[in-house]
Amino acid sequence: MKRDHNRLRKQIQFILEIDKLKKIVRQSPLIDRSRKENDAEHSWHIALMAVLLIEHAEEKTIDILHVVTMLLMHDLVEIDAGDTFCYDEAGNANKLERETKAADRIFNLLPEDQAAYFRSLWDEFEAKHTAESKYAAAMDRLQPLLHNYNTEGGTWKEHQVHKDQVINRNHPIADGSTFLWEYAAGLIDNAVVKGYLEDS
Amino acid sequence: MKRDHNRLRKQIQFILEIDKLKKIVRQSPLIDRSRKENDAEHSWHIALMAVLLIEHAEEKTIDILHVVTMLLMHDLVEIDAGDTFCYDEAGNANKLERETKAADRIFNLLPEDQAAYFRSLWDEFEAKHTAESKYAAAMDRLQPLLHNYNTEGGTWKEHQVHKDQVINRNHPIADGSTFLWEYAAGLIDNAVVKGYLEDS
Repeated sequence: MKRDHNRLRKQIQFILEIDKLKKIVRQSPLIDRSRKENDAEHSWHIALMAVLLIEHAEEKTIDILHVVTMLLMHDLVEIDAGDTFCYDEAGNANKLERETKAADRIFNLLPEDQAAYFRSLWDEFEAKHTAESKYAAAMDRLQPLLHNYNTEGGTWKEHQVHKDQVINRNHPIADGSTFLWEYAAGLIDNAVVKGYLEDS
Repeated sequence: MKRDHNRLRKQIQFILEIDKLKKIVRQSPLIDRSRKENDAEHSWHIALMAVLLIEHAEEKTIDILHVVTMLLMHDLVEIDAGDTFCYDEAGNANKLERETKAADRIFNLLPEDQAAYFRSLWDEFEAKHTAESKYAAAMDRLQPLLHNYNTEGGTWKEHQVHKDQVINRNHPIADGSTFLWEYAAGLIDNAVVKGYLEDS
């Protein structure tokens, strides 16, 4: 496929378009509490976490490149659909519809084969049936939990979130790694003791 | 290595420390020109570019996970050493010394084997002798060039950079991909025609 200028033109168009991910602000604060992080920063952080923590994955035959690629692209739909706060019930009601429309537009900027690959990766991430998507989802949940704990409550305090909501939201970490879920559950317990999170 | 709490504690400490990469501001503007990008955003962008553009790599047996991991971590030393503008001769004179000291501190937060792996990856990226590091470096140079071109001059205009400087800086893209270098050289020529970049 070398020297295919039309193909490269589409790839570059996509690369320029996804720069917008740097403007999609999430709820999670930076550890220094100076501001909220954005989707590009979050995606970078969890992709590197996935490499570092792979030894703790439940499944021992995980394709780590597959996981990392999934994490690098999993939030691209938010360029159109925006970040939906995980404890916002109204926002989550039509989230899939908004994000599917976004996937249709954004991935189709790519050459057909790559558009299909990215769409299948995103569908896999959303379905969470494979070992790769379960481990990827564990990273996506553990990172904001680390941020909230290490900012003495972060988003939990800001939105008066309760312990049972945090457990419901984060329990799927166990599907990717029981060890990391035990660690996370310990942080949640500690967060209540320290007053970072309201008991249920 | 499961259930090694001391090991996990070090990994989490590292994960929290590298959040600071989100505060290291680079020279390159976002495509919408609203602000300059930071190292975490840049690292995310080029890691995803590496996956998308791998078909254009000069070498056909590249380990893409190796490339992506290298790109995700290649700027971590800037947490201590700061971003050194590529056309700043004074800043570049002691860059290696500052960055080596940073590598010694930051990577050593990790368990010993992972610290050694990250150090070897960073050394490989700096040396640019392997196919993986040459392709990784091509991504690291192509992305700011795309940003400068697509913001009608960006950093080039801000710092009165000349065409020969941009060619010298970016010519190593050819070591990773002659096709991408041909594309980049075309952009540089066009940038002069359009007045985004001063002729030499």
